[in-house]
Amino acid sequence: MLTLYAAKNTVAVAPHIALEETGLSYQISWVSFADNDQRKPEYLALNPKGRVPALVTADGIITEAPAILDYIAEISGDLMPTDAYARAKVRELVSYLASTMHPNHAHGLRGERWSDDPAAHASMKAKVPETMAASSAYVESCLPDNGWLVGTYSIADIHLYNVCRWLKGDGVDITDYPKLAAHFDAMHARPAVVRVEGAHG
Amino acid sequence: MLTLYAAKNTVAVAPHIALEETGLSYQISWVSFADNDQRKPEYLALNPKGRVPALVTADGIITEAPAILDYIAEISGDLMPTDAYARAKVRELVSYLASTMHPNHAHGLRGERWSDDPAAHASMKAKVPETMAASSAYVESCLPDNGWLVGTYSIADIHLYNVCRWLKGDGVDITDYPKLAAHFDAMHARPAVVRVEGAHG
Repeated sequence: MLTLYAAKNTVAVAPHIALEETGLSYQISWVSFADNDQRKPEYLALNPKGRVPALVTADGIITEAPAILDYIAEISGDLMPTDAYARAKVRELVSYLASTMHPNHAHGLRGERWSDDPAAHASMKAKVPETMAASSAYVESCLPDNGWLVGTYSIADIHLYNVCRWLKGDGVDITDYPKLAAHFDAMHARPAVVRVEGAHG
Repeated sequence: MLTLYAAKNTVAVAPHIALEETGLSYQISWVSFADNDQRKPEYLALNPKGRVPALVTADGIITEAPAILDYIAEISGDLMPTDAYARAKVRELVSYLASTMHPNHAHGLRGERWSDDPAAHASMKAKVPETMAASSAYVESCLPDNGWLVGTYSIADIHLYNVCRWLKGDGVDITDYPKLAAHFDAMHARPAVVRVEGAHG
């Protein structure tokens, strides 16, 4: 049995969807950001970074959404193409989302990570619509005219969907990016996604 | 034949070392940041993000260091453990380095990515020694008392080495982190690393 430590409507939505899609046996342990659970000693003992997600396996704990997504794909034999180049294109998008687009988003709410000056936080927050629009345009350029990123459904589609859930709050209108909007709708129609959205609603 | 587009002493050092370690047939195509090559139309046609590294394969182009490192491991059958959990721990560290520690470093030189205010850039730069020290302490906690991250030498060790090359410039003394310092020295002693350092020197 796998246990995913997740906070509602965070990056943990992505591994939650991946688990729900594969049929692996798992349970969710909720971490409440409102109660600051992620800073409490019992959670820090599990994940000293004080972030979600964290996946508890029989072998130990795995953190970082891209690593958890790849692990779920690997042990389920699902959600990844078999060809090495296609797998690289999946990981390329996951990495971009995690290391560029997610940090762009985080500057709207977590400016204290990178500056101690409240005026700097305000200037970072002001730029989020611009950086997230630029990231959206890049991701739009990666998508095919129809269907999933690499043809078959993968962890990249799942991670992309989750990041796109943030766009409205970041001042970006997804309908400005037709392929992204169609991808979002296709994800939103999947039964596993509907179930996970219900759990985070 | 693989072609790695690399700028000297950037994150591209990591895939350069990985290629040199595996014995795969490859060549380097240098991108000069001093000449702003990464913003020229011919490079943007290859990688619209205007960043390095980019790996040209027979199937197409791969960007994002973590995806390139995983691809090199996959096609060479080297630089990754075989056990799924150990592979996840490799990817966990690579993801942390790419999505947390590299952005921490980038706030020292690339503040304009996240704010238009020069005063904000200065405050970001001022915080880099603190964030990079915190990241160094976290990575130190991940390392075993001796040897490589997961026992066998992997892409995580290579990416970690490259990020540690930045510490001195970011105001962090690596000798404050004994396991990190020993890991850095062990990497620096590898013949493939010496050859790549020579190319970037």
